[in-house]
Amino acid sequence: MFDLHQGGKMEIASSVALDGPDDLSMAYTPGVARVCAAIAADPALAHDYTWVSNVVAVVTDGTAVLGLGDIGPAAAMPVMEGKAVLFKQFGGVDAVPLCLASTDTDEIVDTVLRLAPSFGGINLEDISAPRCFEIEQRLQALLDIPVFHDDQHGTAVVALAALENALRLTGRSHAETKVVISGAGAAGVACTKILLAAGVSDIAVTDRLGVLHSARGDLSPVKAALAELTADRTGRTGALADVMAGADVYIGVSGGTVPEEVVALMADEAIIFGMANPIPEVLPEVAHRHARVVATGRSDYPNQINNVLAFPGIFRGAFDVRATAITEGMKLAAATAIAVLVGEQLAEDYVIPSPFDSRVAPAVASAVAEAARADGVARR
Amino acid sequence: MFDLHQGGKMEIASSVALDGPDDLSMAYTPGVARVCAAIAADPALAHDYTWVSNVVAVVTDGTAVLGLGDIGPAAAMPVMEGKAVLFKQFGGVDAVPLCLASTDTDEIVDTVLRLAPSFGGINLEDISAPRCFEIEQRLQALLDIPVFHDDQHGTAVVALAALENALRLTGRSHAETKVVISGAGAAGVACTKILLAAGVSDIAVTDRLGVLHSARGDLSPVKAALAELTADRTGRTGALADVMAGADVYIGVSGGTVPEEVVALMADEAIIFGMANPIPEVLPEVAHRHARVVATGRSDYPNQINNVLAFPGIFRGAFDVRATAITEGMKLAAATAIAVLVGEQLAEDYVIPSPFDSRVAPAVASAVAEAARADGVARR
Repeated sequence: MFDLHQGGKMEIASSVALDGPDDLSMAYTPGVARVCAAIAADPALAHDYTWVSNVVAVVTDGTAVLGLGDIGPAAAMPVMEGKAVLFKQFGGVDAVPLCLASTDTDEIVDTVLRLAPSFGGINLEDISAPRCFEIEQRLQALLDIPVFHDDQHGTAVVALAALENALRLTGRSHAETKVVISGAGAAGVACTKILLAAGVSDIAVTDRLGVLHSARGDLSPVKAALAELTADRTGRTGALADVMAGADVYIGVSGGTVPEEVVALMADEAIIFGMANPIPEVLPEVAHRHARVVATGRSDYPNQINNVLAFPGIFRGAFDVRATAITEGMKLAAATAIAVLVGEQLAEDYVIPSPFDSRVAPAVASAVAEAARADGVARR
Repeated sequence: MFDLHQGGKMEIASSVALDGPDDLSMAYTPGVARVCAAIAADPALAHDYTWVSNVVAVVTDGTAVLGLGDIGPAAAMPVMEGKAVLFKQFGGVDAVPLCLASTDTDEIVDTVLRLAPSFGGINLEDISAPRCFEIEQRLQALLDIPVFHDDQHGTAVVALAALENALRLTGRSHAETKVVISGAGAAGVACTKILLAAGVSDIAVTDRLGVLHSARGDLSPVKAALAELTADRTGRTGALADVMAGADVYIGVSGGTVPEEVVALMADEAIIFGMANPIPEVLPEVAHRHARVVATGRSDYPNQINNVLAFPGIFRGAFDVRATAITEGMKLAAATAIAVLVGEQLAEDYVIPSPFDSRVAPAVASAVAEAARADGVARR
């Protein structure tokens, strides 16, 4: 049953032919020395004469792999290979999986900094919260290439794209929509931030103990910051059921389960995204009894919120303009680009394109490149 | 003139087809989770279900690149890509170039240790002496995968292969042959050690100040150790010219130039390997006036001593048996395998096969795998 994975899912390919001594002396010594000397004299030439500008490091420490949790670097490799395969197929981006034998924040940051000359971008993957936040922030501050934690931003971009269409379908404005986000980990933090950036202002984030608000004495620094951006502004407190009463949108990124009687408290024409894999927080069969738009992370239901709609095109666009970072504007542009592809086919079971819609990655890449230029992070 | 290098010389390729949602859910989530869980339960399965066991990290810090010296990690990338292309073409080995933004021994060791779960072997490349020795020794002691500094051992293996045939052609025995090795850097150290292991006992190693011997007060620890293994045993001292008088073999791995009057002091039917690139220590036109067998590192003369004859097959063989290290026995076996391919065609201008002789890598791989089993470092 593991046949597909036998020997791994990827390989290195040469893009030059070596058919004889002349080819060898051009591609390797002595001919290659001229190229090295040129880059030593003008480092920007590395963009032109190496693969670096098209290659992203997919970096994990194996601490938060899918629903499996902390399984370590060796066991994380099949996911990272899968990610690399998707980067190539959907974005034409070369990706190298790097599973690190360290879970120490400083060590991971130092390691990636030392590797940086070999890569055009860094995709952080399946690193547990809260370390993932600090690692991403420190790396992006110190590097002049894009650093992107996909569990945060990939998820957030695609969720926003689906939400934009769900709001359009149900005739809601951003300002009047009440959103509950269940889960304050990597994806919850990023979904909250991108929704705020998109103009959704009434958000309550919950963890196992209820709504995040500053009067709670148990909040971590990350959760306290989230509370200030969300429930503190609206005065919401209490349990999940308290904020679900009358809520327009539920976004599950927690892995928990919402009882049906709580789901039933939502507003008419509710929107429910249960994104936990493989078991959504609200099973579609249940959700449909109380909501108009239902999405999950699964491929076997309509409206799959799948990161692959975002990350290949985002890096393609960033690489195309040699961006130095991935800005909030680039993420919002990616979400909009995904959303508008649905166009006039918009329906309850079609608020987000299929991962195999070949229009997606080019549209995302183009929008991201344009946003990079607008945000002043494009180098060409 | 850099067209061949435009965009780099390599790319990632997928070895699985992703033609629709079913493929996606097998190669990535949720299907991949079963593979991860299996490896978490039995780490040895990573050999079977990831690409790790076929992929070598080509690691450099850019301090000793070709004849260019310390040009830094970014400018070293074209060489490392070339190396990766050769690994694939000649050995079927996937190789990932990693150019590190650190020249600190401890940092390089720590970085590679953290990366190790992602790779089946480590090829150190173009790291300057003496750090290259310590880095290789510490990594091999701490890792259970092959660690191989190609500038040392690749060069030494191919030089030994050529020398074996040159000795055969000129009717010399290992015990009676007097060898001068000019250069006490990475290649000089490794050539000395492999010649000693092969039974050549009369070796004098020279640096810019003459023969390495223990009475000299200026020797680094590496050179002092080399002196003990070589001239201290024969009592040789003095300048290069002193040991060249009557020498049977000259092996140049220094990058210097030997005056013709010194070359003229060698024994009849001398053997001269000038391996510096692009300018051999003794130009073939000069060498042929005083020697019977002449070899260089260049592809435009006969008898090219080219590392590509060794490293692809050595890693292929080591990977085929999942070796935990590359032993002296495996290196000697590689040299013998290369040498015997020359067979009855042995001649002054044919002591070593062509890099494009398709028999070489399989023969080396087979011999290396067998030696790994004999040395107890094979895992299958």
